Amino acid sequence: MPDDAQPLPQGGSLSYATAELARRFRQTRAQTTALAEPLAPEDQVVQPMDDASPTKWHLAHTTWFYETFILTPFAPDYEPFDPHYAYLFNSYYEGAGERHPRPHRGLLTRPTVAEISAYRAHVDRAMAGLLEKLPEQANADIATLTELGINHEQQHQELIMTDLLYLFSCNPMSPAYSSDTPDTGDAAIPLDWISFDGGIRQIGHQAGFAYDNEGPRHDVLLQPYRLANRAVTNGEWLEFMADGGYGQHDLWLSDGWATVQRENWQAPLYWQRAEGEGAWRAFGLHGLIDIDPAAPVRHISYYEADAFARWAGKRLPTEAEWEVASEGIAPEGNSLGTGTFAPKPAQGGEGLRQMFGDVWEWTASPYVGYPGFRAPEGAVGEYNGKFMSGQMVLRGGSCVTPEGHVRASYRNFFYPHQRWQFAGLRLAEDA
Amino acid sequence: MPDDAQPLPQGGSLSYATAELARRFRQTRAQTTALAEPLAPEDQVVQPMDDASPTKWHLAHTTWFYETFILTPFAPDYEPFDPHYAYLFNSYYEGAGERHPRPHRGLLTRPTVAEISAYRAHVDRAMAGLLEKLPEQANADIATLTELGINHEQQHQELIMTDLLYLFSCNPMSPAYSSDTPDTGDAAIPLDWISFDGGIRQIGHQAGFAYDNEGPRHDVLLQPYRLANRAVTNGEWLEFMADGGYGQHDLWLSDGWATVQRENWQAPLYWQRAEGEGAWRAFGLHGLIDIDPAAPVRHISYYEADAFARWAGKRLPTEAEWEVASEGIAPEGNSLGTGTFAPKPAQGGEGLRQMFGDVWEWTASPYVGYPGFRAPEGAVGEYNGKFMSGQMVLRGGSCVTPEGHVRASYRNFFYPHQRWQFAGLRLAEDA
Amino acid sequence: MPDDAQPLPQGGSLSYATAELARRFRQTRAQTTALAEPLAPEDQVVQPMDDASPTKWHLAHTTWFYETFILTPFAPDYEPFDPHYAYLFNSYYEGAGERHPRPHRGLLTRPTVAEISAYRAHVDRAMAGLLEKLPEQANADIATLTELGINHEQQHQELIMTDLLYLFSCNPMSPAYSSDTPDTGDAAIPLDWISFDGGIRQIGHQAGFAYDNEGPRHDVLLQPYRLANRAVTNGEWLEFMADGGYGQHDLWLSDGWATVQRENWQAPLYWQRAEGEGAWRAFGLHGLIDIDPAAPVRHISYYEADAFARWAGKRLPTEAEWEVASEGIAPEGNSLGTGTFAPKPAQGGEGLRQMFGDVWEWTASPYVGYPGFRAPEGAVGEYNGKFMSGQMVLRGGSCVTPEGHVRASYRNFFYPHQRWQFAGLRLAEDA
Amino acid sequence: MPDDAQPLPQGGSLSYATAELARRFRQTRAQTTALAEPLAPEDQVVQPMDDASPTKWHLAHTTWFYETFILTPFAPDYEPFDPHYAYLFNSYYEGAGERHPRPHRGLLTRPTVAEISAYRAHVDRAMAGLLEKLPEQANADIATLTELGINHEQQHQELIMTDLLYLFSCNPMSPAYSSDTPDTGDAAIPLDWISFDGGIRQIGHQAGFAYDNEGPRHDVLLQPYRLANRAVTNGEWLEFMADGGYGQHDLWLSDGWATVQRENWQAPLYWQRAEGEGAWRAFGLHGLIDIDPAAPVRHISYYEADAFARWAGKRLPTEAEWEVASEGIAPEGNSLGTGTFAPKPAQGGEGLRQMFGDVWEWTASPYVGYPGFRAPEGAVGEYNGKFMSGQMVLRGGSCVTPEGHVRASYRNFFYPHQRWQFAGLRLAEDA
Repeated sequence: MPDDAQPLPQGGSLSYATAELARRFRQTRAQTTALAEPLAPEDQVVQPMDDASPTKWHLAHTTWFYETFILTPFAPDYEPFDPHYAYLFNSYYEGAGERHPRPHRGLLTRPTVAEISAYRAHVDRAMAGLLEKLPEQANADIATLTELGINHEQQHQELIMTDLLYLFSCNPMSPAYSSDTPDTGDAAIPLDWISFDGGIRQIGHQAGFAYDNEGPRHDVLLQPYRLANRAVTNGEWLEFMADGGYGQHDLWLSDGWATVQRENWQAPLYWQRAEGEGAWRAFGLHGLIDIDPAAPVRHISYYEADAFARWAGKRLPTEAEWEVASEGIAPEGNSLGTGTFAPKPAQGGEGLRQMFGDVWEWTASPYVGYPGFRAPEGAVGEYNGKFMSGQMVLRGGSCVTPEGHVRASYRNFFYPHQRWQFAGLRLAEDA
Repeated sequence: MPDDAQPLPQGGSLSYATAELARRFRQTRAQTTALAEPLAPEDQVVQPMDDASPTKWHLAHTTWFYETFILTPFAPDYEPFDPHYAYLFNSYYEGAGERHPRPHRGLLTRPTVAEISAYRAHVDRAMAGLLEKLPEQANADIATLTELGINHEQQHQELIMTDLLYLFSCNPMSPAYSSDTPDTGDAAIPLDWISFDGGIRQIGHQAGFAYDNEGPRHDVLLQPYRLANRAVTNGEWLEFMADGGYGQHDLWLSDGWATVQRENWQAPLYWQRAEGEGAWRAFGLHGLIDIDPAAPVRHISYYEADAFARWAGKRLPTEAEWEVASEGIAPEGNSLGTGTFAPKPAQGGEGLRQMFGDVWEWTASPYVGYPGFRAPEGAVGEYNGKFMSGQMVLRGGSCVTPEGHVRASYRNFFYPHQRWQFAGLRLAEDA
Repeated sequence: MPDDAQPLPQGGSLSYATAELARRFRQTRAQTTALAEPLAPEDQVVQPMDDASPTKWHLAHTTWFYETFILTPFAPDYEPFDPHYAYLFNSYYEGAGERHPRPHRGLLTRPTVAEISAYRAHVDRAMAGLLEKLPEQANADIATLTELGINHEQQHQELIMTDLLYLFSCNPMSPAYSSDTPDTGDAAIPLDWISFDGGIRQIGHQAGFAYDNEGPRHDVLLQPYRLANRAVTNGEWLEFMADGGYGQHDLWLSDGWATVQRENWQAPLYWQRAEGEGAWRAFGLHGLIDIDPAAPVRHISYYEADAFARWAGKRLPTEAEWEVASEGIAPEGNSLGTGTFAPKPAQGGEGLRQMFGDVWEWTASPYVGYPGFRAPEGAVGEYNGKFMSGQMVLRGGSCVTPEGHVRASYRNFFYPHQRWQFAGLRLAEDA
Repeated sequence: MPDDAQPLPQGGSLSYATAELARRFRQTRAQTTALAEPLAPEDQVVQPMDDASPTKWHLAHTTWFYETFILTPFAPDYEPFDPHYAYLFNSYYEGAGERHPRPHRGLLTRPTVAEISAYRAHVDRAMAGLLEKLPEQANADIATLTELGINHEQQHQELIMTDLLYLFSCNPMSPAYSSDTPDTGDAAIPLDWISFDGGIRQIGHQAGFAYDNEGPRHDVLLQPYRLANRAVTNGEWLEFMADGGYGQHDLWLSDGWATVQRENWQAPLYWQRAEGEGAWRAFGLHGLIDIDPAAPVRHISYYEADAFARWAGKRLPTEAEWEVASEGIAPEGNSLGTGTFAPKPAQGGEGLRQMFGDVWEWTASPYVGYPGFRAPEGAVGEYNGKFMSGQMVLRGGSCVTPEGHVRASYRNFFYPHQRWQFAGLRLAEDA
């Protein structure tokens, strides 16, 4: 999903308990601020590649969203904090006017972190005032858009973490976001295969908040299939590498092979081989540390996920297979709220593990609209639909996805060459 | 399909009447040669962009295919014409060794056209000798690979025409391939909608020769839908343009809009506006001539097809919808054999028109493998499967597709920004 | 001069009064720190283009110079502040080992501004200790290298200002470095021509500190010539623009014209035209303000200077003409020490004005070595000689050149397309 | 000199014997045609890099020159051969209107070689008619411009050879232009040093035809110096390579070192190392053959020439040193007329050898105008002056420079990274 993708409630309007909405608004805002807490101002201003925006920009853009889509149209006395910000902090909404070019976000040393903090406070106060005036059961645009704003901000919480990780990885001093030492030593549970029947099933969103791209709910036709009970591990990835996986053209899609050659990929993003030793270490939010063979592999592209599956004699699941299989599994796991900042080895229990949290799972499904999908009118209609070409669907959430953000029908999407998200894979096969 | 894509027979081996096979081989070879007949040697050597290879290269590469995959392994006394050619004329077969870089095909002024003509004759003689020795009913690798070679060469016949058109379009003198003046003045039949039921249906190849990517035949689940009875016309495209279609961001996919802006697209490829007059003309194989409003629009990208459909309040068909709808329609139409070298207005009759020939039709389907698809082993296994990312499926064939080359299950594929093929669109909608 | 060019004392060793040297060291260090005083940490970390390094990097690199070339070899007990810094803060000294790639300087959010401040203090203490131990009249490597380090740091003071200006110019909010409003309203003195005789004269450095590229002193042969008494003004530049100067190919060098077309130059760097009004404003260290017609034009390339001179029916002076003409003129003027941060209109008096300060003056001389020039051995020998191709000489210093840094023989150099320095021009003609 | 540089007579008009002029015109035209004789049409159409134009283009452009600057203005009844050609075959004359972009010259497969041959015949006839009508002693624009056209065409004769060599070098089959085997086995004469006095001397053109950039003749001041008696040989270059010359940063200019790294230069252009053997061969107009250690090194850049001289403890001569030293030496040598198509080892005799012919010699002088130089008005004034930035002067002519084209004052110029000309070097030192 682009660094500034934002969801639209699909289907009709929702009904909200206003107090609960206000509480969630405050909580989300505070969580975002807390993520930037360990950072110096210097860390928050640089854009290390087009895809990875500065923390400062995320802090401002999420705030701009409430200002632009809620306060300006609905709060009669609202005064914009600074007239420049409408231009500076629009991400990609053509419908919301001209905007600062995305690759130049890192050139904006002003407004400073302190000024953006004041901007956040200004908008928070206005939003609190606005939400206070809603009836107890709000069933209206403001509530719906606030819900959208909260979800939007949660997406940017994840991006703050992944963009920062990319930034820190460019520094030869290997700075760590978290000074905790992650637990290692746990083995992962053995690989096992869970079977599912074929037939006509339904996927797509059913109730509660969801983005527009999760619907309409519709029938899909499945053949019997099996999913691996857990994500592919670093240890399994090392076997792929040891078997020359990055050097065998016949494992790769043509575009993938061209990328491997051009970029000289020999391992997942952030892996480094210690001089002389031959052992790999991986850079992460705890700095540069030894590979944990039991933990899920992370920061791989779709091309790599696809090549691995071919090497293993398996395939990636389709998004329909994934979603049907996830029925009855609570959307909880090792997410941002746990504070681990890294995927962990799969643990105990029967059935599918790690469906939510740890790593996003690349699927075999190109990201296109479901049958009957139409993007809503207006600027918020630019949220998802216009990205429906050239990208692949990922499912399930990662270790830096905020608690409560994902669900079974949630569709994330990235280009097949992109690696800076916490993305891994789960194998599938025909039954 | 890449300029050198080649099909693989899918499923088991086929049974061939040898004499018929030899006749078709000779005929195909002669057709290729005839296409280059109107060209000067100078026209056959230049590569105007990475995607568009020189005629000379196509003439040699199609010959190399028989030499490499048939004569060298199966004809015991065969002497390669020139040892350099294995390197020079391999297109993309990693399994067939190193090759001359694709963007450098236009640097090879030697071998000359005359030398390649001698190469063709050399291989033709050897192939004739080999086919003569086959039993009357050949059911073997040689026949299967010869069939593949014939189909492969037919694909390159189409590419000779589209690559040459692109080359000539770069010349301010607007040279014409054909000196005939195309007929114009016919109106197209009115737009009509043909309805199809939903339900579980089957798509994929059934019998006879097909490429690997056309199978396995499998169930698909359709919702009731309608297809337009004919392709979108130039006249309809002019309405889209007059309505500001190239300037309205909300009609476009995000990647498409970026391409429109970057490339400054304002009309289909090859359209030029006469100075001062405001009227558009289009460059084609007959040179630069007035737009025929009744003829199908040609040389548009997927992005443009998708934007047009959105503007029209419709959508593109999926490839399954297209294939199911084509049942019972003979795969014949305005193809290379007619010598028109341009799409023509849809004429008379009930039901779907122009399903085969005239223009390839962009579908809404990303090009991925069918359920259960596995690429064959070895170099010929690189034919289709490795291209299954980032491209979109087109169906039906064009005015420069050789007679008899396509069928209902035929899947062509190109990247969504590519425009140098004779590609247009047909609209669809939910019933 | 590259953003990290550094001079070498030319000729033999110099004799220094140690106390004076120590005082100048402390003063220079304090001046650098003072320049960064008005900046937020955010302003000090970003690299807006390859040529313009972050303030933070300049603060560290100037410090690294003393550490690498003086403290490490000569101070027996010296402990490097951080072992990473040798790699991070080397600019281009191949002889000093591997270094962080120049275009990636802006990715280093760590060390922070505060940490670099501590680094500066650490090196300052060690340098103070070392200088204290020198004999009263130091005539040795340490003194010579300290002198070099001071001059090196002065160059980076200028670069801090020009790089920051470029960075701020990328921000649509047009932040100002200085909140003072510059004086305007003074007229410039009228243009006048000062004559000089031809004959054999000498140029090159004579006594005191100088960079290696300023020698050897040598004979030059001049024809009689005239120099303008002052720099070309903004007002004169507006006439050039009004006369279509940026649109007449025959005024331009071929490479210059290609640059004008490619970059769409229509005015000096930093000039903006106010919407609708037709009046130009210029961005500078005081923000975006009205053009002062009497002040020297600034931020032009060599190509523009050369085209202007041709338009005016004049030419640029050679560096020899400039140097000979400057004899007897004290190297003082509107420099960094004045705190104006902008060139000012030429004022009163006879003879040549503005020879030092205000703007660097492009000459007609390519930057090559003087007859007999040889670069010194070792890493400091990389200071100047290796840049002797493709660049043009500028003379005289600018409004952000530190007091006392330049002299008559001083040779600055930049590529002919570069515009981010405070560069202008003075006209010349044959007598 | 750019592939289409053209000279302007400097100084006043010249007096010509018309019959002699007409003879030289015919001879030059015939020589050009003869150069293309061994080529297939395919060889004449491709542009392998921006700098290297197709033979066909050279054949047409030299013809366009007479048509545009002589026939159209001066021959009242002249009918242009084809109205498109004014656009297609203008090289860089802004004053002669819009032109086909230089990097796209290789896209023009039409007009064909045969059509351009007809174009040449058409213009030759018209020129013959025009010259016939001149008085016996022509002292007029037509004669002057014809002289210019002849010299212009001679330059393109050289470019036909160097551009073709580059084209053929891109073909893995290593085609040869000439089927002769070049003589080898001669030793070069030993290196010797020839001394010259210092003092005030004169350089620049004196009498007869010359380009505008060769004047005005003017005083220069020289210090005593020595020149090597011959060009640097391949054998000496191998010593430089064996000593790690391409790997020692301190031998190189900064821009040169960056080029070495980026382009991975390890030897002169066209050198290839035979697999396994360690011996170098060089591609040339005779194909790929063994290096002749006694022959002058060819196809090196200025950066390489400069690095070699530094390695050798010497320097390159200035153009003034070269020109003064050449006094009294006839401008003859191993040039295009000899048909050797390769530089040969220096042979016998005292004093300077190989000053003319064999290889162009890079000098230490940037290409700028002489004191008092002004480019003439109008389109022919674009001949030389506008290229006076960023390039270096070469002197003396090469083995593919036409007989009689060069003289002592002749100034050739190329960018310091360019290698596709027959360029080598001669060493110099201070006396």
